[in-house]
Amino acid sequence: MTNKKRVLSGMRPTGPLHMGNYLGALANWIDIQDDCECFFFVADWHALTSNYEDPGDLENLVRQIIIDWLSSGIDPEKSTLFVQSKIPEHAELYLLLSMITPVPWLERNPTYKDQILQLQNKDLSTFGFLGYPVLQAADIIIYKANAVPVGVDQVPHVEITREIARRFNYFYGNVFPEPDAILTQTPKILGIDRRKMSKSYENAIFLSDGPEQLQKKVMQMVTDPQRMRRSDPGNPDVCNVFEFHKLYTDSSKNAQIDEDCRCAKIGCVDCKKIMAANLIQALAPMREKRDFYVHNQDTVNDIVEQGSQKARQIARQTMVQVRNAMNITY
Amino acid sequence: MTNKKRVLSGMRPTGPLHMGNYLGALANWIDIQDDCECFFFVADWHALTSNYEDPGDLENLVRQIIIDWLSSGIDPEKSTLFVQSKIPEHAELYLLLSMITPVPWLERNPTYKDQILQLQNKDLSTFGFLGYPVLQAADIIIYKANAVPVGVDQVPHVEITREIARRFNYFYGNVFPEPDAILTQTPKILGIDRRKMSKSYENAIFLSDGPEQLQKKVMQMVTDPQRMRRSDPGNPDVCNVFEFHKLYTDSSKNAQIDEDCRCAKIGCVDCKKIMAANLIQALAPMREKRDFYVHNQDTVNDIVEQGSQKARQIARQTMVQVRNAMNITY
Repeated sequence: MTNKKRVLSGMRPTGPLHMGNYLGALANWIDIQDDCECFFFVADWHALTSNYEDPGDLENLVRQIIIDWLSSGIDPEKSTLFVQSKIPEHAELYLLLSMITPVPWLERNPTYKDQILQLQNKDLSTFGFLGYPVLQAADIIIYKANAVPVGVDQVPHVEITREIARRFNYFYGNVFPEPDAILTQTPKILGIDRRKMSKSYENAIFLSDGPEQLQKKVMQMVTDPQRMRRSDPGNPDVCNVFEFHKLYTDSSKNAQIDEDCRCAKIGCVDCKKIMAANLIQALAPMREKRDFYVHNQDTVNDIVEQGSQKARQIARQTMVQVRNAMNITY
Repeated sequence: MTNKKRVLSGMRPTGPLHMGNYLGALANWIDIQDDCECFFFVADWHALTSNYEDPGDLENLVRQIIIDWLSSGIDPEKSTLFVQSKIPEHAELYLLLSMITPVPWLERNPTYKDQILQLQNKDLSTFGFLGYPVLQAADIIIYKANAVPVGVDQVPHVEITREIARRFNYFYGNVFPEPDAILTQTPKILGIDRRKMSKSYENAIFLSDGPEQLQKKVMQMVTDPQRMRRSDPGNPDVCNVFEFHKLYTDSSKNAQIDEDCRCAKIGCVDCKKIMAANLIQALAPMREKRDFYVHNQDTVNDIVEQGSQKARQIARQTMVQVRNAMNITY
């Protein structure tokens, strides 16, 4: 038993992770590994909530995201990595929590309405999609997590989790702590076309991109849209390339670029070349680790196997308490 | 492997079974034991869909219903008896089926609307109550049951099960047979106050009632409401006592009673005395078996344990096929 805060978070295995995923979530996971007892899981069942008609090669997608995590710096010596579907206790708790969760709590969930609007080409009027926050609550509280790192759009989900935990405790006795949301500060990185970075927009820089791809994508980046000609002065405040500079170029150099851009002393091509070189260098350790894990998939499997065993043991202990609390004990 | 039809049915453990439960379902289960490979389960998770706020002593309720079944003639040598919550695979399949089940299928379920109206003192606007038919579908198809014996009010549930199985097969390949409903013919037995027999109306004759209680309850029975005085002629066609006579009194004697009642030759008290004696005699073998099982609870536990093990083995095999079909195989 440790005195560290227990933290839980997960991602859906829907394809290779990009810089947006990294800076928006993964970098934060890596940061908190030393201070918290972290559990990170691949939410393969969750992937079915919106991709049920064609889940794709889930087996491969799961392997891919684990390799993305490990390459980025998730350390299996510090954190527990596991796959949701390997812990069937999540499903049992989902079932039991579904009995006490009022439908209106789910219908008023802003993400629910939002996704149904955004993904109009998919039929999302399914029972599982409606119950997404119930499964998420089960994922979190089965480990009695104290905290969940989330983006601001996910805060309502953590709130529903807290409400479900509270309702369970009210009916059956105090089993679950209410987890806190840890708000992740996210740099304002955009895709190369200046829209939100997203796999489906084909504007993403992937963690698995090699130096050539990185170079090519950076050179394609849309900069300050008002700067039409080399001789026009630019505005770094609205430039996506400059956002990357802030992260990957040292600050004195950055101040220079900022100044030179505003008086057209440096052009976008040169500016991008500097950024690309720095980005490629910064991601070098990730590429090295990726190379190791891609060629040592047994190691990856062992990490997931051990992590899932550890997670399952905790989940099982919690479910004994849950069944006792609910008198499901014959 | 047998060529017999596989049949599955279950009951919620909500209290002692009464003659209505016996004649409406259990008698039919007992009948089909020889011709079908039967799986009968205690739906303890289902009991939570409407009793979540206070599930009561579920452990004891489960034991009670198993003893009711065994006493009535469910033969553990012929049929497999198990408890739903001992087969966590039901929960996993419930979760996976929830991903493909459209909410409108559940909202249009007539039992859903009906129960919400009938049980207005309970808050049934829960996600689990809405998803009741999804769990029921999982219960049935995880055993690849060919048939489900049901009362006419349950037919829409079997129809939803068929639709869910069909939809799964359409998306992921042919895993599940579509089960047929076997309509149970039910005698028109009423409670002692002439309303529908129901535990909550306190008008029930329980399978566990001893001779004295049976005698007392039969003597309290409301007969033909038009027959106010001993000298009034009665009408057996509308008499609940006569419905019992049809089941427990031999037909020649019955014809006599019918005739005598219509010309007031026999009074209700005498008529009831005959019926009570026959009912008490007919239920004697049940009482004997009950006595055995109540005093041999280890035997009961063993039966449930063995049945649950057998059921679980089948459920596990099915889930391997399900996970393969959906690519949940990392």
